[in-house]
Amino acid sequence: MVIVMSPGATDDDIAHVVERVESVGGEAFVSKGVVRTIIGLVGDIESFHHLNLRTLRGVADVRRISDPYKLVSRQHHPDRSTVWVGPSGRQVPIGPGSFTFIAGPCAIETAEQTVEAARMAQSAGATILRGGAFKPRTSPYAFQGIGAAGLKILAGVREATGMPVVTEVVDARDIEIVAEHVDMLQVGTRNMANFGLLQAVGEAGKPVLLKRGMSSTIEEWLMAAEYIAQRGNLDVVLCERGIRTFEPATRNTLDISAVPVVQAASHLPIIVDPSHAAGRKDLVVPLTRAAIAVGSDGVIVDVHPNPETALCDGPQALLGTELRELAQAVRRLPPMVDRVDARELIR
Amino acid sequence: MVIVMSPGATDDDIAHVVERVESVGGEAFVSKGVVRTIIGLVGDIESFHHLNLRTLRGVADVRRISDPYKLVSRQHHPDRSTVWVGPSGRQVPIGPGSFTFIAGPCAIETAEQTVEAARMAQSAGATILRGGAFKPRTSPYAFQGIGAAGLKILAGVREATGMPVVTEVVDARDIEIVAEHVDMLQVGTRNMANFGLLQAVGEAGKPVLLKRGMSSTIEEWLMAAEYIAQRGNLDVVLCERGIRTFEPATRNTLDISAVPVVQAASHLPIIVDPSHAAGRKDLVVPLTRAAIAVGSDGVIVDVHPNPETALCDGPQALLGTELRELAQAVRRLPPMVDRVDARELIR
Amino acid sequence: MVIVMSPGATDDDIAHVVERVESVGGEAFVSKGVVRTIIGLVGDIESFHHLNLRTLRGVADVRRISDPYKLVSRQHHPDRSTVWVGPSGRQVPIGPGSFTFIAGPCAIETAEQTVEAARMAQSAGATILRGGAFKPRTSPYAFQGIGAAGLKILAGVREATGMPVVTEVVDARDIEIVAEHVDMLQVGTRNMANFGLLQAVGEAGKPVLLKRGMSSTIEEWLMAAEYIAQRGNLDVVLCERGIRTFEPATRNTLDISAVPVVQAASHLPIIVDPSHAAGRKDLVVPLTRAAIAVGSDGVIVDVHPNPETALCDGPQALLGTELRELAQAVRRLPPMVDRVDARELIR
Amino acid sequence: MVIVMSPGATDDDIAHVVERVESVGGEAFVSKGVVRTIIGLVGDIESFHHLNLRTLRGVADVRRISDPYKLVSRQHHPDRSTVWVGPSGRQVPIGPGSFTFIAGPCAIETAEQTVEAARMAQSAGATILRGGAFKPRTSPYAFQGIGAAGLKILAGVREATGMPVVTEVVDARDIEIVAEHVDMLQVGTRNMANFGLLQAVGEAGKPVLLKRGMSSTIEEWLMAAEYIAQRGNLDVVLCERGIRTFEPATRNTLDISAVPVVQAASHLPIIVDPSHAAGRKDLVVPLTRAAIAVGSDGVIVDVHPNPETALCDGPQALLGTELRELAQAVRRLPPMVDRVDARELIR
Repeated sequence: MVIVMSPGATDDDIAHVVERVESVGGEAFVSKGVVRTIIGLVGDIESFHHLNLRTLRGVADVRRISDPYKLVSRQHHPDRSTVWVGPSGRQVPIGPGSFTFIAGPCAIETAEQTVEAARMAQSAGATILRGGAFKPRTSPYAFQGIGAAGLKILAGVREATGMPVVTEVVDARDIEIVAEHVDMLQVGTRNMANFGLLQAVGEAGKPVLLKRGMSSTIEEWLMAAEYIAQRGNLDVVLCERGIRTFEPATRNTLDISAVPVVQAASHLPIIVDPSHAAGRKDLVVPLTRAAIAVGSDGVIVDVHPNPETALCDGPQALLGTELRELAQAVRRLPPMVDRVDARELIR
Repeated sequence: MVIVMSPGATDDDIAHVVERVESVGGEAFVSKGVVRTIIGLVGDIESFHHLNLRTLRGVADVRRISDPYKLVSRQHHPDRSTVWVGPSGRQVPIGPGSFTFIAGPCAIETAEQTVEAARMAQSAGATILRGGAFKPRTSPYAFQGIGAAGLKILAGVREATGMPVVTEVVDARDIEIVAEHVDMLQVGTRNMANFGLLQAVGEAGKPVLLKRGMSSTIEEWLMAAEYIAQRGNLDVVLCERGIRTFEPATRNTLDISAVPVVQAASHLPIIVDPSHAAGRKDLVVPLTRAAIAVGSDGVIVDVHPNPETALCDGPQALLGTELRELAQAVRRLPPMVDRVDARELIR
Repeated sequence: MVIVMSPGATDDDIAHVVERVESVGGEAFVSKGVVRTIIGLVGDIESFHHLNLRTLRGVADVRRISDPYKLVSRQHHPDRSTVWVGPSGRQVPIGPGSFTFIAGPCAIETAEQTVEAARMAQSAGATILRGGAFKPRTSPYAFQGIGAAGLKILAGVREATGMPVVTEVVDARDIEIVAEHVDMLQVGTRNMANFGLLQAVGEAGKPVLLKRGMSSTIEEWLMAAEYIAQRGNLDVVLCERGIRTFEPATRNTLDISAVPVVQAASHLPIIVDPSHAAGRKDLVVPLTRAAIAVGSDGVIVDVHPNPETALCDGPQALLGTELRELAQAVRRLPPMVDRVDARELIR
Repeated sequence: MVIVMSPGATDDDIAHVVERVESVGGEAFVSKGVVRTIIGLVGDIESFHHLNLRTLRGVADVRRISDPYKLVSRQHHPDRSTVWVGPSGRQVPIGPGSFTFIAGPCAIETAEQTVEAARMAQSAGATILRGGAFKPRTSPYAFQGIGAAGLKILAGVREATGMPVVTEVVDARDIEIVAEHVDMLQVGTRNMANFGLLQAVGEAGKPVLLKRGMSSTIEEWLMAAEYIAQRGNLDVVLCERGIRTFEPATRNTLDISAVPVVQAASHLPIIVDPSHAAGRKDLVVPLTRAAIAVGSDGVIVDVHPNPETALCDGPQALLGTELRELAQAVRRLPPMVDRVDARELIR
């Protein structure tokens, strides 16, 4: 931590800061400039927080130097991690060296629609099935998902296709039943800062797919992952899904730089969701290509056998030609960036 | 709704759109331009949503014309509403014509600190006490509030001072106990899109203070209020607390325009939180003055008897001179915009 | 300046940084923490910039501590400045202690329209007339102003009404002719970072009204003012006119907090433009009230005798009832925040 | 255009709107809904603008349907364009089907540094040299470029290496001399809305590289291109260089989706600048890979023979290993997305 004193700070003000820091066992290094004095702190950051240094007389600013997260940081864990999803014999890796393609319908509607979407996804190269049973929707008048019935459908399709399944959980009270039916729990963008839910999924014993909050900084996102990790679960996969900006041409702005930024800061795997970022199906294939090339550990894409009748996000679901182009991209590009298709690594 | 056809749309494409609209009982008015055709839709919007019109061939865009919220809209409820907070005999109004000052510590720490803060607030003109027992914090290593013990302290100070109390609820499982101890439930900025929580507070039988999500549009915020209203609770007070922008000088950017924008669109009362918007105590007084002058129905401000030892947001808590200036602003300015001090209206 | 070393930096890396700093006459104070070392620099900042410290091995980050502007800073000039606009006998102040109301049409169209708008403005309490002859417009197909002819009209109305005049300059080649006809040069939001134009207005010998770039930080805005000041012109008035955010309800988001933030950092006066911030005439009166209450040194507002036929920004121009409400706000509120009407101070 | 009437609009209000539209030769199609009436307009948009429809009684909103640009739109020019840069025999294409790599130092410092950077760029696969003689800098105390002397250096290196050259122009008064020395004129991010400069480069007879304004929407960017095109110059290449958002991990947020969005809306070529977007050299290679994969027509990258002594943006300039990785990406990835190296197409 660095304390920046205001230009008018007195020697007494500086001495008082040093004294407070030393009172909790810290060391304070004072650098007196012509205009301002700065004080570097060494010691336990948590104890410094309790001093409310910003309220002391003469203090202009307090700046943090270290990362505010620990368990998910790459600092003490330099090797990037691989998270394995699914039961033994069908375990799919998400991590460095491989590329994992996740696909499925935005919302589970019927068993027929789900199995058909799963077959589409699988034949395009997907190894994990996604599908929403509980849907958080901005409007109370929009379709909210079919709930527990959707979980049963997902479990059935999981058996039929052999694909591990990921689904969103929106309420801590639903975690137990969701965890019984699927292989990976998704925390959606609207719940990234729902700390009670994060702690609850941290105790559920399943890998977690943690989407970035639509206006969260990368640092806040990694702190959300830290909430999960603190409860003993380090099997967290991050998912960049676009951030809110002033640009109206896309539903969100895909922050493609977040992939290498996260990979430099954290050992956790990171994937990209081009469907929700863009909200336009004509952008899904080029954004998937960009995600692979930038070094993403995977992608998650909306597919639907009949977008015209989809109950949720139909306009962004892929079909036909686009799906074939997507399958081609997912097959041809990963080797160019030294990635192996996750299908070859299932164990 | 208006459908904008792409320049290359054929007559068949247009006819197909019209047919789909009529199939659910709607009417379609076609305006053929030189380059583009647009189609105005009249009928039940919910049924149009199920058509996934955006996926039809030749459709370039679908634009909504009406507000997506109903119960909280001013359209069918032109008079602005007043929400009354507290038990009979101590009921404080928040609404048009009055100005309500809410104050208290960010976090409840001890009974002494709380009662002292309440006395400070009350002597500065506050009529409702705020204080957090459950604190949602970005870092898992930050102070998370003292929980149920804080509720008991609040209930005690409520008795001692006669002030109605508002506190934040962060988990649907806590609503019952919170509602037993306080007069108004606050939904914080991080939970504005936690739809399960919104529905649960909608059923709790207490007025709700709904903070704006830090990156929510005003429309999304009113839809969040609609979630509460749908469960039978129209006693919702909105609270503007700053939005996330690129400007680093303040923690958030107070969107002061949101006050008249909301008042034109919705009948619900709206107040302003200058403390959390700015994150700097030197801005609290000028922003409070701005809030009163723009026509806000109230403000909610952090005060703490000893900011230096506060466990949460000490740097923004007011004390001494600033609190006196605040008290003066709250007393002198409301009459200039035809507002009566809420203290005179308690019933 | 503070240099943050990366966790893996070696003693040699640290020694090399110290050596480079000392090579340009600076001092380096090293604070070794358990994980990271930080180095506080004391000396001439310009010389440190030339070291490209960020490219040295082991350096993780370089953080500036001091303000990057000097002449406009309040640090060495604690008293806030007053800028006087207009010729002797008609000089209007903009600065602390007074409140200045500037009004006029967005664009000069005809002599009749301009004089009528000026009379409206004057009778509502305005002391300075605004009017655009050169209009920077996003679309090349929009009305671009009537140019030099507009300057002549402005000069005529200035004589007829006795009001000093401010108009926008968009090209350095126009400054001479503009400065001949008006009393104050406006640099618009799109040109805030047009550094050649800033330098040219800095040499023109007239006060400057510098609007904030629509996505500029306050620090960048003060650096733009520094460009003008560097050329010998400290008669700069800043104008907050809304910033670009994700919120679509208003054309821009008025950053009302910018007023006290600027007043704490700089001695220059600052005013607010509620018309361009909101882009909606129903918000102009409440936002003007907020601007006065927050402590703005003035406001600048669009008025037009016939908004229906205005060639530019008609929808935000005030008329009739709204203008009367505006006049009332401008008369009644400034005394509440210890401000004198600028009309009483003309010299 | 579509006019949305407010719920309280009367039949007279509607009739008045229709009358105004017809008075300028337009047609108005009225769709009466239960709550609101909408009116679709057909005819000449420019004439509708002059009606100030938004100021008419009963009008709630006016929404544009068509693109506000024409010459750069893909609507009447479905084939994407190629811009050729440089003199005959050394002409380099930028457009569909090819991939063009532009590189060079951020700022021209000396002839030696420039020729060395050009050799580095060329051996890494670059076909066009970039280098700044006039540098727009946020701080008036930062290095502003060496001006005309830099143009002479660039012209010399152009002869020595055979590479066409692009450089930024910041003032309309410099265009003539700049156009004499280089092959392509760059309009920087801070000048994207400097309409006088756009018009002047439109008349200079050289291809233009138009960077996106750091907070411009894609639509505004295309309107800026339209300003250039209107003056008879359709040889405009767009350059995405990151937009301003709330995320501090990168200097700007690269809006990678802008590439396919622009390619769908306009026939102009578009390239990506990963160096200025990120401001961090460790992100340049992954972002270049993403740009190629998303379908960009080229990239422009900072290289410097000695970043430690660079006078501008040293921390983002590539050297050594990173440059080799970049060269490899630029060689291997374009064929995967059906692009030919521009080196093979020089004519």
